[in-house]
Amino acid sequence: MPRVPHVEKHFTATENVRDIVIGMSDGLTVPFALAAGLSGAVENTSVIVLAGLAEIAAGSIAMGLGGYLAAKTDAEHFVSEREREVRETIEMPEEEAAEVARVFLDYGLPEHTVGTVVDALRSDQKRWVDFMMKFELGLEEPNPTRARVSALTIALSYIVGGMVPLTPYFIWRSSVHTALVASVIVTLLALLVFGYIKGRFTTPRPWRSAWQTALVGGLAATAAFIIAKLIG
Amino acid sequence: MPRVPHVEKHFTATENVRDIVIGMSDGLTVPFALAAGLSGAVENTSVIVLAGLAEIAAGSIAMGLGGYLAAKTDAEHFVSEREREVRETIEMPEEEAAEVARVFLDYGLPEHTVGTVVDALRSDQKRWVDFMMKFELGLEEPNPTRARVSALTIALSYIVGGMVPLTPYFIWRSSVHTALVASVIVTLLALLVFGYIKGRFTTPRPWRSAWQTALVGGLAATAAFIIAKLIG
Repeated sequence: MPRVPHVEKHFTATENVRDIVIGMSDGLTVPFALAAGLSGAVENTSVIVLAGLAEIAAGSIAMGLGGYLAAKTDAEHFVSEREREVRETIEMPEEEAAEVARVFLDYGLPEHTVGTVVDALRSDQKRWVDFMMKFELGLEEPNPTRARVSALTIALSYIVGGMVPLTPYFIWRSSVHTALVASVIVTLLALLVFGYIKGRFTTPRPWRSAWQTALVGGLAATAAFIIAKLIG
Repeated sequence: MPRVPHVEKHFTATENVRDIVIGMSDGLTVPFALAAGLSGAVENTSVIVLAGLAEIAAGSIAMGLGGYLAAKTDAEHFVSEREREVRETIEMPEEEAAEVARVFLDYGLPEHTVGTVVDALRSDQKRWVDFMMKFELGLEEPNPTRARVSALTIALSYIVGGMVPLTPYFIWRSSVHTALVASVIVTLLALLVFGYIKGRFTTPRPWRSAWQTALVGGLAATAAFIIAKLIG
């Protein structure tokens, strides 16, 4: 996510908020839908709790560890692209200068101005490479400790989100029906609240985010329920 | 993902490849881990097939529809930020010009050059706004038909990925143990192949991507198996 220089005007979600959103929105949705689906075909809450907890373990590891490795790959990608740009500014400086010039010419800058800009950028190799990394390739330098924090945040958010729809199945162990109804009510409310808060960070219309988030969860649960009913 | 102008030199995953990777990597991992986990606690393949199919339905909808809404939100975010920038170039052109100037001053351009660049950019409002959208805010104009294609690609990839670990449970309906062993072999192979192909697109080290992808799936499945054994 590109960092925005003037925060007071344009919204930017912090990376932690984004990770919580990623983990929690899947955590609230998928275990919810799985539990609701199984409720359509299974008489026994213990199977649902078992499947739900197995799903939370699988999902949190897949998302957290997957996110960790993806962040590590991004960081390496940045380093290798940067090395390539450094090499290119040494081995083929004219081609690289022409690439920078093209960026500015496309924005309608007159040629003599572009020449001055390119010469000024070229005068300092580090800045020249920095400029190309950001404006030509659109790559931001990743924070080195980010991957681990991000993985843990996503995994924990998935677990916290996933426990919401499962809790009723712990409480009403003897009645799948009661647990299902309670799980649907509690989780839809949680999705509304979560969608609203997420929307406050990402859109000017948080209420729409609230009902859309609840809708995705509701549709996923309905689809899982119908499939389980058909084959159960 | 920012588009890269000179594709022949720097890698860029197409958006479709990225969507297939997103859908398939979770599709291969989470239903696999769920089925393996349940195999540790349930005697009956039909419960595993049921839970697996419910999970695939839930996961594909959550990822596909969730991705659709996220892409729509991004598109709206772009439009509203663009409108804001247009307004600002009219209402407070000097502040906006100063922001652009700051970008270039940070890269060490001499002040008189920056003045010429800013004046050239300001001379055409559309280009000026385009420039700020891309270089100051780091936002690319989203493709309007992208959201729907992306949602379908992610959802279908999730379904295709998820059917791989479940297929053995359809074939060996009478033995959870045989189905589990077959599912582990088939899915780890699929994760290796998928991780290798993904790595060919994203890193210079595709073999490492192969074993890392298999490792994430294997760990998620092991964790789900242990949890299901403990409580099952």
